[in-house]
Amino acid sequence: MKKLIVLLTDYGYRDPYVGVVKGVIKSINPEAEVIDLTHGVERHNILEAAVILAVSAKYFPRNTVFVVVVDPGVGSSRRSILIETSNYILLGPDNGCLTLLAEQDGVKRVFDISNSKYKLPEVSYTFHGRDIFAPVAAWISKGVPLEEVGEEISYSEIVKLTFEKPIVNERDKSIKATVVYIDVFGNIMTNISNMDLSKLNPSFGSKINIEAGASIHTCVFEASFSRVPEGELACYINSWGYFEIAVNKGNAAAKLRVKQGDGIVIKQVEQLVDNT
Amino acid sequence: MKKLIVLLTDYGYRDPYVGVVKGVIKSINPEAEVIDLTHGVERHNILEAAVILAVSAKYFPRNTVFVVVVDPGVGSSRRSILIETSNYILLGPDNGCLTLLAEQDGVKRVFDISNSKYKLPEVSYTFHGRDIFAPVAAWISKGVPLEEVGEEISYSEIVKLTFEKPIVNERDKSIKATVVYIDVFGNIMTNISNMDLSKLNPSFGSKINIEAGASIHTCVFEASFSRVPEGELACYINSWGYFEIAVNKGNAAAKLRVKQGDGIVIKQVEQLVDNT
Amino acid sequence: MKKLIVLLTDYGYRDPYVGVVKGVIKSINPEAEVIDLTHGVERHNILEAAVILAVSAKYFPRNTVFVVVVDPGVGSSRRSILIETSNYILLGPDNGCLTLLAEQDGVKRVFDISNSKYKLPEVSYTFHGRDIFAPVAAWISKGVPLEEVGEEISYSEIVKLTFEKPIVNERDKSIKATVVYIDVFGNIMTNISNMDLSKLNPSFGSKINIEAGASIHTCVFEASFSRVPEGELACYINSWGYFEIAVNKGNAAAKLRVKQGDGIVIKQVEQLVDNT
Repeated sequence: MKKLIVLLTDYGYRDPYVGVVKGVIKSINPEAEVIDLTHGVERHNILEAAVILAVSAKYFPRNTVFVVVVDPGVGSSRRSILIETSNYILLGPDNGCLTLLAEQDGVKRVFDISNSKYKLPEVSYTFHGRDIFAPVAAWISKGVPLEEVGEEISYSEIVKLTFEKPIVNERDKSIKATVVYIDVFGNIMTNISNMDLSKLNPSFGSKINIEAGASIHTCVFEASFSRVPEGELACYINSWGYFEIAVNKGNAAAKLRVKQGDGIVIKQVEQLVDNT
Repeated sequence: MKKLIVLLTDYGYRDPYVGVVKGVIKSINPEAEVIDLTHGVERHNILEAAVILAVSAKYFPRNTVFVVVVDPGVGSSRRSILIETSNYILLGPDNGCLTLLAEQDGVKRVFDISNSKYKLPEVSYTFHGRDIFAPVAAWISKGVPLEEVGEEISYSEIVKLTFEKPIVNERDKSIKATVVYIDVFGNIMTNISNMDLSKLNPSFGSKINIEAGASIHTCVFEASFSRVPEGELACYINSWGYFEIAVNKGNAAAKLRVKQGDGIVIKQVEQLVDNT
Repeated sequence: MKKLIVLLTDYGYRDPYVGVVKGVIKSINPEAEVIDLTHGVERHNILEAAVILAVSAKYFPRNTVFVVVVDPGVGSSRRSILIETSNYILLGPDNGCLTLLAEQDGVKRVFDISNSKYKLPEVSYTFHGRDIFAPVAAWISKGVPLEEVGEEISYSEIVKLTFEKPIVNERDKSIKATVVYIDVFGNIMTNISNMDLSKLNPSFGSKINIEAGASIHTCVFEASFSRVPEGELACYINSWGYFEIAVNKGNAAAKLRVKQGDGIVIKQVEQLVDNT
């Protein structure tokens, strides 16, 4: 099957950066197919790119080449790397943006992209998406073997993203967690997986307290945000399999005043069981 | 001819939602071609999506599969439907977003998308674009017969969009109309068609009064907004065939303080004919 | 090789304009491949479009068809033109948006797109991207000879963009220049090319004064902005080969209060050479 190239960057949609990256790819491999995962990553937000890549990859065909360019260190001495995982090929700067997916999918080999043969003849200091990642992705989509891009290095040598695991306290039915992504609607995605939440095992309609900063908000656990009245808080397992807080037709991040990286605590509200 | 899949959503460009929808499509049918109509529909604005679909469809090849996901009721009990029209195949939630085009193009058959065979194995409560509409569109683009997606239902059973017709008063040369779309430039598109306007039959250069809220604005009827000086109001039949009000190099919606759904009245200014 | 069609417009991403342009292209030539250079050009900013086209084109394959629609004069009497250059085919309004690239790449022939055979049957007054440029581009990508689109005209007849050259003063080591592009990050690109700057020949780490309006800012000349501490000004040759001013992880245009078209003066700060 033809290899797909998927782009994930913080280039935005105003400038010609993404278009030029595609021009380079099509100049090398006219048969390549390119899909935009998004170019709306917050500028220089490596964690955001890493989370997006980790939750999205499984919806793409095997052997897809993912090119991630969120690269505050472009022009410094950071390496450009390629990670071969069980199912995918990942290209990006050595700053951790690839490692959440890599560890989840299973690392096979890592390469330092040092072979100038597959880069553009002139590599600028500030646009490696165009000069390094686009041409290397295009050559790989054309069948160049991965080991051609540079010397193999150990996974232990590269930068990892520290991504704290949530701490479940089964005794008081609480989970200490982190906000990992806030989408354009203001929905708050946490690092609490479906599996983590199953230790509290809330039923639909039960209440959960969210401690964010100095305030506590009570919200109903539901199948989705559309089950609560407009303007009210709901929490649920989102479509990626993570615990999320939303306001039906509103903005939860604004209401709770949280941002990506913030710690929150969720706690099941005790149900008074009436045994009379 | 290969079927094209066209996406129209309110997902925006910041999050990976659109990219993942394409990943699902390419995973099922690597040969599918996907075009973005726009993902900039205002969040949950069903009328906006319906208008965009109705004016745009005729510029696409016959048999194009349109996937419309503007879906405030996702996760509730609303159905997912497929409408076969004379020229196209329409997929979306049963909330009216498809019906303006369907009635204009002619309804052939309607199906409730209930067959789980063509959905993703796990259907989330909040992302039916990925879990239902993308895979069903991909299978259809691969040749799966429409009746495979679920049981046929009657067009009378589905939700329609009420879209008031303009009221032409030929005696006082006025039309009572509705603002149906405001584009990014602030141009105000009404539901007055070329045909409706022909009953007033204004000539280029004649004046038309626009009553919007408590104020009346006089503007010149022209072939296009570029025929009036910068900063001035013009009205004209727009490129979709509807009566539109614009400010040359300015923002008419801001100037007239109107928004989508507002009623306005247009009235031809009497021409004093000098018969001396 | 199959001809690529590349779109560059100020249509933005909210409305269905770009999607419909692609629908027209695919209706005429289902095999056409379309790439978005960007649709984020500032509304009616012809210079911005011209600069983007001029710096981007060389990253696309030979024979690429570029369609540029930044067209404040749509609906007036301005012509629609096609310019064949040494490597590319350029389509757009006759307002100068194509001429920076045309002069840089070498003009071969110019045509007035007057043959209605390759336009849509009904040409609107306000959407020539859909009614003229999209169908003509599609027919050309299908092999229609260029001379079919209309009568050949002289390059001297069309509107050129006046684009001032920087003035280098080698005596006092200064260059009088113009801001030609400000990207979404606020990086300030000038019209000073690598070649122009070589007459001053600053070394990495040396200081350059930037006079913008009434203020003077000193910044360090580096290989890239990432070589200076966060929040500080750097200047460097950008990835397109032009002198640019940026703030590492900040917004230089906001800091210097400059906008596109502004004049600035850069001046090398004298180095006191210590010969003791």
